[in-house]
Amino acid sequence: MLLNVERAMRTMDENGLDGLVATTLANVYYVSGLWSLSLTMFPLDSQVYAVVPRDELSKPIVVLPTGDLDTALACFPGVRLINFGTFYREVAEGIELTPDETRLKELSIDRRPRADALDGLVAALEEAGLTGKTIGLDEKGIAPSYPAELTKRFPRLKIQPAASIFRHIKMVKTAEEIRRLRSAAQVTESAILEAVGVAKEGVSEAELGKVFQRALVDQGAELIFMALRIGRFTAFGQVPPGETRLNKGDRIWFDCGCRYMGYSSDVMRTFVLGDPGARARRFYSGVLEAQERGLQAAKAGARAEDVFHAAMQGFREGGIPHAKRHHVGHGVGIDLYDPPLLAPGVDTVLEEGMVLNVETPYYEIGTGALGVEDTFVVTQGHPEFLTSISRELVILE
Amino acid sequence: MLLNVERAMRTMDENGLDGLVATTLANVYYVSGLWSLSLTMFPLDSQVYAVVPRDELSKPIVVLPTGDLDTALACFPGVRLINFGTFYREVAEGIELTPDETRLKELSIDRRPRADALDGLVAALEEAGLTGKTIGLDEKGIAPSYPAELTKRFPRLKIQPAASIFRHIKMVKTAEEIRRLRSAAQVTESAILEAVGVAKEGVSEAELGKVFQRALVDQGAELIFMALRIGRFTAFGQVPPGETRLNKGDRIWFDCGCRYMGYSSDVMRTFVLGDPGARARRFYSGVLEAQERGLQAAKAGARAEDVFHAAMQGFREGGIPHAKRHHVGHGVGIDLYDPPLLAPGVDTVLEEGMVLNVETPYYEIGTGALGVEDTFVVTQGHPEFLTSISRELVILE
Repeated sequence: MLLNVERAMRTMDENGLDGLVATTLANVYYVSGLWSLSLTMFPLDSQVYAVVPRDELSKPIVVLPTGDLDTALACFPGVRLINFGTFYREVAEGIELTPDETRLKELSIDRRPRADALDGLVAALEEAGLTGKTIGLDEKGIAPSYPAELTKRFPRLKIQPAASIFRHIKMVKTAEEIRRLRSAAQVTESAILEAVGVAKEGVSEAELGKVFQRALVDQGAELIFMALRIGRFTAFGQVPPGETRLNKGDRIWFDCGCRYMGYSSDVMRTFVLGDPGARARRFYSGVLEAQERGLQAAKAGARAEDVFHAAMQGFREGGIPHAKRHHVGHGVGIDLYDPPLLAPGVDTVLEEGMVLNVETPYYEIGTGALGVEDTFVVTQGHPEFLTSISRELVILE
Repeated sequence: MLLNVERAMRTMDENGLDGLVATTLANVYYVSGLWSLSLTMFPLDSQVYAVVPRDELSKPIVVLPTGDLDTALACFPGVRLINFGTFYREVAEGIELTPDETRLKELSIDRRPRADALDGLVAALEEAGLTGKTIGLDEKGIAPSYPAELTKRFPRLKIQPAASIFRHIKMVKTAEEIRRLRSAAQVTESAILEAVGVAKEGVSEAELGKVFQRALVDQGAELIFMALRIGRFTAFGQVPPGETRLNKGDRIWFDCGCRYMGYSSDVMRTFVLGDPGARARRFYSGVLEAQERGLQAAKAGARAEDVFHAAMQGFREGGIPHAKRHHVGHGVGIDLYDPPLLAPGVDTVLEEGMVLNVETPYYEIGTGALGVEDTFVVTQGHPEFLTSISRELVILE
């Protein structure tokens, strides 16, 4: 189980909610353990839900297409399944079925599916005893007409938008989530080191990118994004790796993330082949000082914007007084960006168990980008790092 | 350029539209060439648009976050850019800028960004001269409150939902799209063959999956989905590859797709280690006969449902009379699923230049899945295959 039960109950009580309906890939996974292939492939079109009653948070009811039932066997124990729509499976005669096969047969063949997602959601709300209650429904992933259809069907049902409620609950991570976030960060670091391991004069961005991606594949992780550029092209960090080749004095910039066991990573590192020159060294000191100040400020009880202002002070005193940023980091979880954003005006109070990234890149057209980004758990004192490789500007020989 | 200009103009005229607004990853890419990282990573939250006036289809106006401007240099020639929101870049002093750097500086620093996506869209409609006209706005990706805000701002503006209009235009592919779809299919086939090349007794699904994924990485393609299972576990085709190991007589099932040059592939193949037995051979003959009948029926002038019924006739006469399917294929393009669905009740008339998949899987709990799926261009006569490897049940020694 990934859900922060205590925080979920408290948040639901504060908002007068008797149940929650998850509608997005991340929120459905968070409460049920279903990684929905439909939502992965068709996030704007597919409808998959997880309904969790306040008093049975460990027994979510998942509503999913019949075609996805094979993947539903990986849900957390205790999950109940309601499927909708047509997908045909047959049963071999005269062959003894395994327990999983028997379950797939029961769900997929012996039981009549609901007509559509709305009909499935209606059944789930009935089964959860929520038809006359107040529910928080994540408005991000629901078909636009469905909330009105539900209230027509259940006149006593009250529906509140719940995207922000899910975000609030998910901000503080459970031990299992932290374990997965640590693994995701380490898998990414390991892939960065593998790529850097082949970095010598003449290697191209695309070649480094392939080594990086192969290292993710080998570890069973999935690429989310890969900003991997060389030299002054680092100013165009998000453009896919190309044929630019590494020369002496060039920097290599990684800002990349993967998904591992459902959780996201986001790591930034800067390397240089040989001497980068005094200016790049000074600027790297600046981004590192900015990150360090941000990290030290990111204690339980501080506000998100305090971290921002501390990091900007680090830029100013660390050697890049003209550097500007709109944020210096963010929460990370199943989604690559969880709240809070570490930005001016964000007064969210940091709590123990939040997992944050502090990132302090500096983008300069003409020379390129520099930066560093790490993931850590918020504590009362020093940050508990989930990343572990050097944060220094590493000079490659 | 990817856009089917003639079909777009005709469709817009039939619907009385003076302009179109693309709002999804696929549609923005289709009209502008911008592969939006924001929409890739945050499809439910990011706002990126491409506005195309009826009379200037080759000059789309792209509205995108300032942070994404580096990627916008890869847009098609003629694209105009309007950026919104804050993202800081500096300029190195005393360094001569390249043309790309100069452009990034002009866009990113010299010009004041629009406040937000709505403000950017307002500016784009003004620049396109569409504020008093009728536009088709893809309702799938727009922030829910924006259409009303636009009509408040421009009382003479008329807005029609356009998701289905984009789907209609995109059904018939241009030569460049067909070239990319062929490459995507061949990259996928090549990766399947690489994986099968290491298939011997004792190999695991996970090991095959890694070879498959590494082959995609090496070819510069990106995994979309990978159903890769062994033996009776093929009945749970969408469950990620696991520790199941290959034994004599086992089948290996691939149903997988990648993205290459922006375009999707979707290929299904079945292999067997040694003799699969008479029953599996008979059933494979059935799925192949069903596919063949579907392929032969998929000519210009036929209806989508005709292909479905022809394939079902193939199942019946080919040795699996009890087989049932809800569809036997679909269009493919930037999106993995383009219309038409080859399903009962779909009366879309097939046209030359549509690119379709015909797939005829058979799922049996207890023994597993069998199937075949290929991609082809619709012509007046025989299908023009974009796939090229054998469609037979391949027996591995």
